[in-house]
Amino acid sequence: MSDIVRFTTNAGRGRAVIRNGIAFFGGHVADDRTQDIRGQVTQALAKLDRSLALVGTDKTRLLSAQIWLKDITSDFAIMNDVWDAWLSPEDFPARASAQCLMGAPDCLVEIIVTAAV
Amino acid sequence: MSDIVRFTTNAGRGRAVIRNGIAFFGGHVADDRTQDIRGQVTQALAKLDRSLALVGTDKTRLLSAQIWLKDITSDFAIMNDVWDAWLSPEDFPARASAQCLMGAPDCLVEIIVTAAV
Amino acid sequence: MSDIVRFTTNAGRGRAVIRNGIAFFGGHVADDRTQDIRGQVTQALAKLDRSLALVGTDKTRLLSAQIWLKDITSDFAIMNDVWDAWLSPEDFPARASAQCLMGAPDCLVEIIVTAAV
Repeated sequence: MSDIVRFTTNAGRGRAVIRNGIAFFGGHVADDRTQDIRGQVTQALAKLDRSLALVGTDKTRLLSAQIWLKDITSDFAIMNDVWDAWLSPEDFPARASAQCLMGAPDCLVEIIVTAAV
Repeated sequence: MSDIVRFTTNAGRGRAVIRNGIAFFGGHVADDRTQDIRGQVTQALAKLDRSLALVGTDKTRLLSAQIWLKDITSDFAIMNDVWDAWLSPEDFPARASAQCLMGAPDCLVEIIVTAAV
Repeated sequence: MSDIVRFTTNAGRGRAVIRNGIAFFGGHVADDRTQDIRGQVTQALAKLDRSLALVGTDKTRLLSAQIWLKDITSDFAIMNDVWDAWLSPEDFPARASAQCLMGAPDCLVEIIVTAAV
């Protein structure tokens, strides 16, 4: 199965799996979930940066993103602030955001992306 | 990075991003969110038609779709009605639907697709 | 459109659609939704096995997975138990799990994957 390459990231069961030049990433969440939404988004994106580097790509090569928030009413604007500071608009992936509860009850944000490699 | 092509659609931060013959689209929502579910699904699909055309493809070449509804109990059947009028069964993408709250509180439906280009 | 291959699986509107060696699957849910979470995850995965076989691949070639649970607080651990019995760790896809309501109110779990073919 040499056409599929799997990496173990530091995102728990979330893996990075590569096929035909596209990397699929598992959900990335903050490790310290005592932090507020700004802290958790910052941590999740830093973790994602490391996962992207692990497979030989970076945030300028994102294709798609889903962003899940525990409380989109209160946290959407702050998440966007941190996102906009992290990524230049010309590198934006196709993105969609929704409110949903995640596996850990104190998890405020989870970020799921695909990227070109 | 000529292997990634990015388009700015009229879907806010949602972009269309193309890689290896697959276009990833951001979430498409209705512009006039005073409309009911039928109106919002109709508008979102019309907007998606324009985004698909922008990247040189169309609704007969969809690969996957996620449909998010604010109230799946009341709106799932109507969404399916509009969807079925829009797309011939032989062109159906791999689809999944869920209830979740989206960024704008008056948003009743958001549609996220990939398509072949 | 010979570059897109569409299969009708037994997953209702969910199709399997193949493009460039990647198969996109619609959401897989249990047929007997009187069952508890363990039963529904087992059924959904068995159905997914059949859909994977239909397009000429299998569970060792999954790329990405989203798992939606009606009640992630009570059902996440049991879902993981069944998942772990089903799939060897070295074959794990990039995965993310969220709580959301699905189209059928008695649906406890829905599984959406992509796979290499």
